[in-house]
Amino acid sequence: MKSDPHSAGEFAFIAALAAKAAKTPEALGLGDDGAVLWMGDGRKLVLVADMLQAGIHALGDAAPAQIACKALRTNLSDLAAMGAQPAFYLSTLCWPKNTDAAQKQTLITALAEEQERFGISLIGGDTIGGVGPFTISITMLGWARGPLLRRAGAQVGDDIWVSGTIGDGVLGLGVAQGFISVAQEADAQFLRRRYEYPDPRLSLGIKLASLAHCAIDVSDGLIADAAHLAAAANVCLCLDPDRVPLSEAARGWLGREADRENALETLMAGGDDYELLFTVPVAERALVKEISQDIGLPLGRIGQVIAGQGVRLGKEGGPHREPRQTGFTHF
Amino acid sequence: MKSDPHSAGEFAFIAALAAKAAKTPEALGLGDDGAVLWMGDGRKLVLVADMLQAGIHALGDAAPAQIACKALRTNLSDLAAMGAQPAFYLSTLCWPKNTDAAQKQTLITALAEEQERFGISLIGGDTIGGVGPFTISITMLGWARGPLLRRAGAQVGDDIWVSGTIGDGVLGLGVAQGFISVAQEADAQFLRRRYEYPDPRLSLGIKLASLAHCAIDVSDGLIADAAHLAAAANVCLCLDPDRVPLSEAARGWLGREADRENALETLMAGGDDYELLFTVPVAERALVKEISQDIGLPLGRIGQVIAGQGVRLGKEGGPHREPRQTGFTHF
Repeated sequence: MKSDPHSAGEFAFIAALAAKAAKTPEALGLGDDGAVLWMGDGRKLVLVADMLQAGIHALGDAAPAQIACKALRTNLSDLAAMGAQPAFYLSTLCWPKNTDAAQKQTLITALAEEQERFGISLIGGDTIGGVGPFTISITMLGWARGPLLRRAGAQVGDDIWVSGTIGDGVLGLGVAQGFISVAQEADAQFLRRRYEYPDPRLSLGIKLASLAHCAIDVSDGLIADAAHLAAAANVCLCLDPDRVPLSEAARGWLGREADRENALETLMAGGDDYELLFTVPVAERALVKEISQDIGLPLGRIGQVIAGQGVRLGKEGGPHREPRQTGFTHF
Repeated sequence: MKSDPHSAGEFAFIAALAAKAAKTPEALGLGDDGAVLWMGDGRKLVLVADMLQAGIHALGDAAPAQIACKALRTNLSDLAAMGAQPAFYLSTLCWPKNTDAAQKQTLITALAEEQERFGISLIGGDTIGGVGPFTISITMLGWARGPLLRRAGAQVGDDIWVSGTIGDGVLGLGVAQGFISVAQEADAQFLRRRYEYPDPRLSLGIKLASLAHCAIDVSDGLIADAAHLAAAANVCLCLDPDRVPLSEAARGWLGREADRENALETLMAGGDDYELLFTVPVAERALVKEISQDIGLPLGRIGQVIAGQGVRLGKEGGPHREPRQTGFTHF
């Protein structure tokens, strides 16, 4: 469950209304990326919901089809962070008045392709002709058969790992908004695609379910999401900025920035990467590398869980400091 | 699953994307008010989703708390139409920029009351600060233990029944918009409340599950929803306008209309009543009356299923005609 980080009232909303669910035997307590219903036959049904709106989570002139795909993928990323296999979704969406039929058909085609790609299918929903911008809400359902990945569970001494590369999301947004420029057009396209069509790390999540102590998907930004893991387990996540994996495009951008340390932190604070951040006991490094090879996805070891609270930046065993940027940095 | 009746493209949207789900063993084919997942332990999980927006499903200046309550209740009504017992919901919502904290608190308080009233609890969701009007999407989950109520199943010879009273919703909207006036202020308040806070007929739906041949909730309007039942079973629903149950407030309004027949049809075509419309074999009339007494809700017998297609208006056994109004009538 997520809420706008700029509005503390939202947390009250969740806390006030979810208190009752936490008491029912079928529903998991909240605070993770999704809710869980125990099915009685050993399976767990995991449910997540996200709303995306043109002008907020996408540029105001972004195509509804792209926003809808991103909505599916961010929900799938939430399932990945819980180690669940996606199955079904419900979609409610609001078309602006006078949307033409071609745009609607483009969205249908795009969602049909996403359904094939991710093995999911629509089971319900609602469409309205509204007065606002294009808005889509997805409720995604997935199955977990083994243990669930949770946010809480990081232990002092654990390695901290992250999948893929970090910072592409915020750079892609910057490219799309025209606030940053990159040397190569191919880099611009790569970064923008990373922002618009994130890759939910579903295979990784399922494989991590019986290995990782905790996991979260990087949506608010590496530093902010590391802070969520730290808070959930009352420990400190110490990240080494020099170990954070960067794409070639991000490295190119970083190389042209005057203040490298600050720029690197901007990438770590930026959101929309939709990679998985997780912690694993040091003794299991070989297993993590095996998983990485199995699924063909680089996994980077970027720090250690230490005693304390919150997020610190520094090399392993060396001095460490507070991050200067904590998330939602805009260019 | 619903869609904007003014836009044929929406039906393509549903048909195109739901085709795959219909092939999976766990999901019911669509066309009913909700999707169903078989749980393996005999239970069925019923899922419905609806989106409501200020300015579309409520007046532009309606309080977010009222819209949110209506969103819960319309989803609950969809569960009622399937004979399911509500349990959990996920909520995604968009606050307009600069919404004050008091309005958010009012919504939390209102939803907490609704949770108590209907025995439901929030298990997930998302809140965003958006650029559009207040918008809320609810995914409601319920359990069905016995047979499910379905839209398809009406048989020639069945009695047609409807719960409560019809036409209050459209009159309540008219009152709220200032397009119609009623003699008594108490009537105005009653009608407006019927429009803003519909009563989902949950107890009725559960009791009908093993009795009725089919059911639907009256959201598009009595005539339009009767047409849905007719189409699902390839039969004709013949309704007697003089038997349609009306509230005292609606009767008062009707009595002052010059063209009674046309005005009555306006009530039958208007939406937002959220009563249950269902068909039952003639032999079970006594059982329906028993249910009515058990739950303290009037149930009116308003016509018969006959051979043919669509909806006709007329007295039992007499001549019948096409409705002149078919739904979404506005004053």
